[in-house]
Amino acid sequence: MDFRIEKDTMGEVKVPANAYYGAQTQRSVENFKIAQSTNRMPIEIIRAFAYLKKAAALTNQAAGVLPEEKAKLIAGVCDEILEGKLDDQFPLVVWQTGSGTQSNMNVNEVVAYRGHVLNGGALTDKEKFLAPNDDVNKSQSSNDTFPTAMHIAAYKMLVEVTIPGITKLRNTLADKAEAYMHVVKIGRTHFMDATPLTLGQELSGYVSQLDHGLRAIDNTLAHLSELALGGTAVGTGINTPKGYATNVAKKIAELTGLPFVSAENKFESLAAHDAIVEAHGALKTVAVSLMKIANDIRMLSSGPRAGIGEIHIPDNEPGSSIMPGKVNPTQCEALTMIAAQVLGNDVAINIGGATGHFELNVFKPMMIYNFLHSARLIGEGCVSFNDKCAVGIEPIEANIKKHVDNSLMLVTALNTHIGYYKAAEIAQKAHKEGTTLKEMALKLGYVTAEEFDQWVDPSKMVGELKGR
Amino acid sequence: MDFRIEKDTMGEVKVPANAYYGAQTQRSVENFKIAQSTNRMPIEIIRAFAYLKKAAALTNQAAGVLPEEKAKLIAGVCDEILEGKLDDQFPLVVWQTGSGTQSNMNVNEVVAYRGHVLNGGALTDKEKFLAPNDDVNKSQSSNDTFPTAMHIAAYKMLVEVTIPGITKLRNTLADKAEAYMHVVKIGRTHFMDATPLTLGQELSGYVSQLDHGLRAIDNTLAHLSELALGGTAVGTGINTPKGYATNVAKKIAELTGLPFVSAENKFESLAAHDAIVEAHGALKTVAVSLMKIANDIRMLSSGPRAGIGEIHIPDNEPGSSIMPGKVNPTQCEALTMIAAQVLGNDVAINIGGATGHFELNVFKPMMIYNFLHSARLIGEGCVSFNDKCAVGIEPIEANIKKHVDNSLMLVTALNTHIGYYKAAEIAQKAHKEGTTLKEMALKLGYVTAEEFDQWVDPSKMVGELKGR
Amino acid sequence: MDFRIEKDTMGEVKVPANAYYGAQTQRSVENFKIAQSTNRMPIEIIRAFAYLKKAAALTNQAAGVLPEEKAKLIAGVCDEILEGKLDDQFPLVVWQTGSGTQSNMNVNEVVAYRGHVLNGGALTDKEKFLAPNDDVNKSQSSNDTFPTAMHIAAYKMLVEVTIPGITKLRNTLADKAEAYMHVVKIGRTHFMDATPLTLGQELSGYVSQLDHGLRAIDNTLAHLSELALGGTAVGTGINTPKGYATNVAKKIAELTGLPFVSAENKFESLAAHDAIVEAHGALKTVAVSLMKIANDIRMLSSGPRAGIGEIHIPDNEPGSSIMPGKVNPTQCEALTMIAAQVLGNDVAINIGGATGHFELNVFKPMMIYNFLHSARLIGEGCVSFNDKCAVGIEPIEANIKKHVDNSLMLVTALNTHIGYYKAAEIAQKAHKEGTTLKEMALKLGYVTAEEFDQWVDPSKMVGELKGR
Amino acid sequence: MDFRIEKDTMGEVKVPANAYYGAQTQRSVENFKIAQSTNRMPIEIIRAFAYLKKAAALTNQAAGVLPEEKAKLIAGVCDEILEGKLDDQFPLVVWQTGSGTQSNMNVNEVVAYRGHVLNGGALTDKEKFLAPNDDVNKSQSSNDTFPTAMHIAAYKMLVEVTIPGITKLRNTLADKAEAYMHVVKIGRTHFMDATPLTLGQELSGYVSQLDHGLRAIDNTLAHLSELALGGTAVGTGINTPKGYATNVAKKIAELTGLPFVSAENKFESLAAHDAIVEAHGALKTVAVSLMKIANDIRMLSSGPRAGIGEIHIPDNEPGSSIMPGKVNPTQCEALTMIAAQVLGNDVAINIGGATGHFELNVFKPMMIYNFLHSARLIGEGCVSFNDKCAVGIEPIEANIKKHVDNSLMLVTALNTHIGYYKAAEIAQKAHKEGTTLKEMALKLGYVTAEEFDQWVDPSKMVGELKGR
Repeated sequence: MDFRIEKDTMGEVKVPANAYYGAQTQRSVENFKIAQSTNRMPIEIIRAFAYLKKAAALTNQAAGVLPEEKAKLIAGVCDEILEGKLDDQFPLVVWQTGSGTQSNMNVNEVVAYRGHVLNGGALTDKEKFLAPNDDVNKSQSSNDTFPTAMHIAAYKMLVEVTIPGITKLRNTLADKAEAYMHVVKIGRTHFMDATPLTLGQELSGYVSQLDHGLRAIDNTLAHLSELALGGTAVGTGINTPKGYATNVAKKIAELTGLPFVSAENKFESLAAHDAIVEAHGALKTVAVSLMKIANDIRMLSSGPRAGIGEIHIPDNEPGSSIMPGKVNPTQCEALTMIAAQVLGNDVAINIGGATGHFELNVFKPMMIYNFLHSARLIGEGCVSFNDKCAVGIEPIEANIKKHVDNSLMLVTALNTHIGYYKAAEIAQKAHKEGTTLKEMALKLGYVTAEEFDQWVDPSKMVGELKGR
Repeated sequence: MDFRIEKDTMGEVKVPANAYYGAQTQRSVENFKIAQSTNRMPIEIIRAFAYLKKAAALTNQAAGVLPEEKAKLIAGVCDEILEGKLDDQFPLVVWQTGSGTQSNMNVNEVVAYRGHVLNGGALTDKEKFLAPNDDVNKSQSSNDTFPTAMHIAAYKMLVEVTIPGITKLRNTLADKAEAYMHVVKIGRTHFMDATPLTLGQELSGYVSQLDHGLRAIDNTLAHLSELALGGTAVGTGINTPKGYATNVAKKIAELTGLPFVSAENKFESLAAHDAIVEAHGALKTVAVSLMKIANDIRMLSSGPRAGIGEIHIPDNEPGSSIMPGKVNPTQCEALTMIAAQVLGNDVAINIGGATGHFELNVFKPMMIYNFLHSARLIGEGCVSFNDKCAVGIEPIEANIKKHVDNSLMLVTALNTHIGYYKAAEIAQKAHKEGTTLKEMALKLGYVTAEEFDQWVDPSKMVGELKGR
Repeated sequence: MDFRIEKDTMGEVKVPANAYYGAQTQRSVENFKIAQSTNRMPIEIIRAFAYLKKAAALTNQAAGVLPEEKAKLIAGVCDEILEGKLDDQFPLVVWQTGSGTQSNMNVNEVVAYRGHVLNGGALTDKEKFLAPNDDVNKSQSSNDTFPTAMHIAAYKMLVEVTIPGITKLRNTLADKAEAYMHVVKIGRTHFMDATPLTLGQELSGYVSQLDHGLRAIDNTLAHLSELALGGTAVGTGINTPKGYATNVAKKIAELTGLPFVSAENKFESLAAHDAIVEAHGALKTVAVSLMKIANDIRMLSSGPRAGIGEIHIPDNEPGSSIMPGKVNPTQCEALTMIAAQVLGNDVAINIGGATGHFELNVFKPMMIYNFLHSARLIGEGCVSFNDKCAVGIEPIEANIKKHVDNSLMLVTALNTHIGYYKAAEIAQKAHKEGTTLKEMALKLGYVTAEEFDQWVDPSKMVGELKGR
Repeated sequence: MDFRIEKDTMGEVKVPANAYYGAQTQRSVENFKIAQSTNRMPIEIIRAFAYLKKAAALTNQAAGVLPEEKAKLIAGVCDEILEGKLDDQFPLVVWQTGSGTQSNMNVNEVVAYRGHVLNGGALTDKEKFLAPNDDVNKSQSSNDTFPTAMHIAAYKMLVEVTIPGITKLRNTLADKAEAYMHVVKIGRTHFMDATPLTLGQELSGYVSQLDHGLRAIDNTLAHLSELALGGTAVGTGINTPKGYATNVAKKIAELTGLPFVSAENKFESLAAHDAIVEAHGALKTVAVSLMKIANDIRMLSSGPRAGIGEIHIPDNEPGSSIMPGKVNPTQCEALTMIAAQVLGNDVAINIGGATGHFELNVFKPMMIYNFLHSARLIGEGCVSFNDKCAVGIEPIEANIKKHVDNSLMLVTALNTHIGYYKAAEIAQKAHKEGTTLKEMALKLGYVTAEEFDQWVDPSKMVGELKGR
């Protein structure tokens, strides 16, 4: 393998001859041989850095502290990064310095050296036209750029992947709720037969869960919209030109089309990542909802002959390598695994968020790695579940009818007529003797056949049907 | 011990002769011998039930389904419960049925039988004036009352204990930030010396954390304000009079003085407790903030002679049973233990919230037990930390000055004058040779003494001082 | 309320006139007003302190550093504590100093002052016969006594409550597995119909889970048997007589009848509580098992008419305040809530364990509070579940037979005769057309009726029946 | 892109022309578009499948149910997989069916079709020499192969990566403890100055933590050594030849060189993954230890001028993009981030383990993904921390001496001579007046200068030095 020599303030380092990155990136590759094949710094963070480095360069130029020529070069390389042209130049892993300094320097080096090449230079030149620290990192520190990249990447993932995914599933479930609003079925509480409701009502509960979840996520966007940039080393903004923090946030908002603002308190933005903790708190709430929903659908579709079997979901693939003809609720399984993962990620994020010291939290890469993981899993998981499962939900009317007809809990309708105690007696004896409710009600003489038919009518027991 | 006989739909049960509760409560006492001396159903839930039973009775009366005489009796006993007069009548534990049915029946029985006594009856009467199910529980089910009690208790605890506690601490820290806004001290990133900031700025970061945390809690109140009452058994509202759900929520709002409303979807309210999960997500965010803040204060006050020692906190008690004269940051310790507890409670709540089935979540008592635990711990923990620690924070100026004066990281101010590389050389050599920055800067010839004094001035490196 | 004056090294404090405790206990009551009505230091810790204070006194006496008269007095009060006579003298809460110093001093004060009274003195005497620090705490520090009390309390709870509780349930399930080893029933994978097994086999899986769980707990006892005592302030054993650590551990082993030994490294014992973390790791494994088992039993007993309904469990109480005659799997609900709680407690313990600094972990009270909580909940939860549910498990043979007879997955037995593909074709077409397997197999001509009957026999598909 | 047609029991599917995999793999690719670029099924699972497929083929051959020719072909492809030659043939992600059926089929297809090619066939042949289900999967089900692969992969990772990594770090710390056993330094409890110990003693505590952690892991290997193979669909062993379970486990033990055995209860092995939960419980214990150790080292090395500064760790890279000359404890940061991740993974595993139903747990891929993640992170993290940090730990003697000399807590040595109260008075007054202990002790007249020098000698206060 061919090498060239690059140096940083600690001395010389051999780097791959064609790499756009330099000494500090290479040091990190060598110093952190931890899960290098699986735990790369998320590419969304690299892209977020491209936005902010471009914004910083243009803001520095406007402030008169960076020449236009350099600013343009920097912006140009950032555009290449955003187009995905330099993805292989970011070899670092999550398990590096907790400030993400090495990934910041990775970006600084790639922008500087790729810019130098675009400017006609060669990678082997001792002096480069752009300096990683003095030019590309101007008016910045890892300590404010990395958290800024965290917020950009997190916010973008939420609005581009997570929220649309949840919304897609929510809408399908709302359509299904509407479609099956009149399908009267047995209710189940404590996993036991209860009074009836309609399939549409049951599904409407899931819709309401996701509606509340979407609002919960939305509530956390304000904190995520605050950018640390301009705080530099410890939050004081040392080495930044006047007005920089506000201006660079505006520029990032402009470049991303998202409502980013300068953080109201930079000390908070560097030393804590409560915005990530808080927003992931909304994600874990959605994970809890999805676990409930997917479990229900798994169970409602169980069978085909010895389960609950009230709904049918699509048959997507052979379900078993040994049991021929078996079909399984595999999308429910993927989604519940995702929910468990998100709940685990939440704890990792909490611990990282809680363990910062003084002016800097140094669990940054771990925190954003887990956040982006959860946000993507929920978004893509919902889409998969929607497209391959929810859209195909259909009632199995024969089973639904059988369950309602047999139910002993229809007796509840008699409470207001004959009181809870006599109603209980009817249900208990019908259960013990294996009769229908009506048979036992008449036998005990508490109601007439006419009264029973009038009072115990499942379709009158389901209340208002909102979907109508 | 004296007993009397009570019965329910399953038969006769011996209950303590003077107990106002009846058969179902007694069954639960005997069936769930789990942590009976330590894990009682939180009294806040019992009180919340009193609000809702009273509201239900009055709403039932207004709807014409309950005689005024009965409604008044019910309301009267509820008032006694709210005054704490009947606290010893609620012996059940958290580890009972997951719907909280037994605690609902405990309340129904106590209200009915105490009401009967107030009405001139005797506990030994076979027939009581009020029936637990048909009167006290009228238009209700455990399935909608227990979640209603959960929201009432959670909301009240948040606004009466949690938010005021956090706010008190936040205000003290804000006062301290203002008071010490000009005390220039060394910054620390990665637990290593960094560029300076002021003590006030450092404290302002904590204030910002708590401000964001308070907003996060506030964002979750809307979901918590939704009441399940009126959904009854499965969410359909079976056995309720017309308009009941809306009216009873209004009545609860009136009685509590809090903005409760009827839930937009009762199926969600019974089958899931995402509101609890979501609100506790905000509490865990605050726990993360408090862990950070208390850790910092613990470390900043460390010493007295071999630590960081930049602030003084009150000496509240002898710190050691063996080391004479020792004083410890005990309030920091209590608060960080609380933070850990809340982060654990969060996981219990998540698992409970995720594991509901069909029309009913049956982890209700466990979920609200953990929620109320966290909400109280944060509120009372903040007050304790505030009163016994934060109010007494004072800078130890001698140590602060020594640390700033010795710092090598002041070199950062030279970046914009001589570049990052030469600045690094100065710092590295000063560190190696044990000199001051200035000595080395002059020795290397990169700046003049005048330039150094002008450029490297800690008081100019701390940026804008917002507290002024 | 009457007071008397006590003092400590910080000065005078008013304490309740009749309290055996003194100044430091009272300071803690006033300094930590956090959950005082619900989060007392667990009584098991106080009892464990009684063992160790007695052991220390006797060991000190034997070493010649404490007069016999004082040692006897101390031992006498410790016996009173162990008999539960002084339970009201320990008012402190979990949320105090993280070393538990205040609870150690609470014990020191109560032993000293109660001893003084036993010796004929009065609480109001200025000079007491026993000094809390110099006599009762001799050769000790909070830093080694509290972790010693943690291990004693944890070990005792495991062997007295947790392990017996799990074992009781394990034995009942083993009996049931034996009893129902020949009841052939449908298997379910992915919550879908699968090939058959017997009810006994299914239950044997739960037995195996608990057997492994018991072994997992047992594996952690060795670490818990190590006692910190003798390490005193920082692990070096300052102020202890020669041989003290070993001798006092032997004495504790003798008094408790449990195999306690002196910790191999006292620095580990004070600075970390990995033994608690490790042992709770076994408890959380058991919690995971219990969640699975209780969920299965909940679901297998679901119905009575619209569920799976393959087993019957005892009807313990009326299940609903609104639905007459309803019975619910309430013991399953309590046990699954307990499992969720233990999984949450695990996280609190992990965070506490991870956040110690230097020579002392200061999350001690929180850690042991959660540990004892989990250990009791599992032990008592298993007994409750056993006595009120598991002992009454019975197969519902009619439903079991119906499910097996209808199953399409019996087709798996044909794989080895006609291959997976043809077998799948039979199952898929039988499902689509609603026929039995046999009808479709014959229709497709892949087997003869004789072959089918010979090959597709559920009783031959369940393999070896170990319980026989 | 070129395609060919493959089919399964559900019909035809287009697969990439050159892929060795077939219809079912392709269906999964299309059905689960979730994190496809980042969450591939871990390659360790694929390798583990290669071991077990080879072992199954050879065992089937020996049992006479698979022709030698086929068995050899299967074994040959498995060897190719083990050599890493077919890594690109396994495109599936973790978020698939919860039984891992699709990855089992992926392996079955690749082995069958690659085997067919090795046997002289073409991928486009309609009939292949080996059938994925009937040959490669013979005597197997996904339900027993996937958990078998989980245990093989987990066990191998523990003994090849995790345990050696921890051991390496443990040994370095033990060497350092030995080397610095006589360096007397100040102790710190509650982050406050305490009585002295030696640096070697302090480090020995970390060694003890890791020793206990290694034992904890070791204790869990027995459960992990149990293999599910032979249980097939639901644990009964349907469609396996006589003796198969025992024989195939022996063959796997032989091929891997690890002590695998057939599980004592196959129902447990399929329906629960308590072995994974239990073993990860040991990993989380180690994570807790590592968090403590790395935090201590981070803090002990803090400074260089305004921190604790008692040890020096290697300078590996420039620490800041803005602060020249800054060096940070980056290995501590990576290791503490890893610890947080492992604690999060633990929760995901717990939830997955707790949420299985009936005969099959369907959180398998998620559970093993997290397990392998943790096991690798701990192993590689310890090696990185060892090589780049621990090996370079050195005391900074000047700071250490200064801290000991100034300490007020040396006063503890006076307890046994003048009592706790007078000793406290000395320390408190020395602190208040800023004197040395000795000055104050003499001033108060409690000791003579000679006595002080004799009694208050740090080197006599550190007890037995075991490392000698």
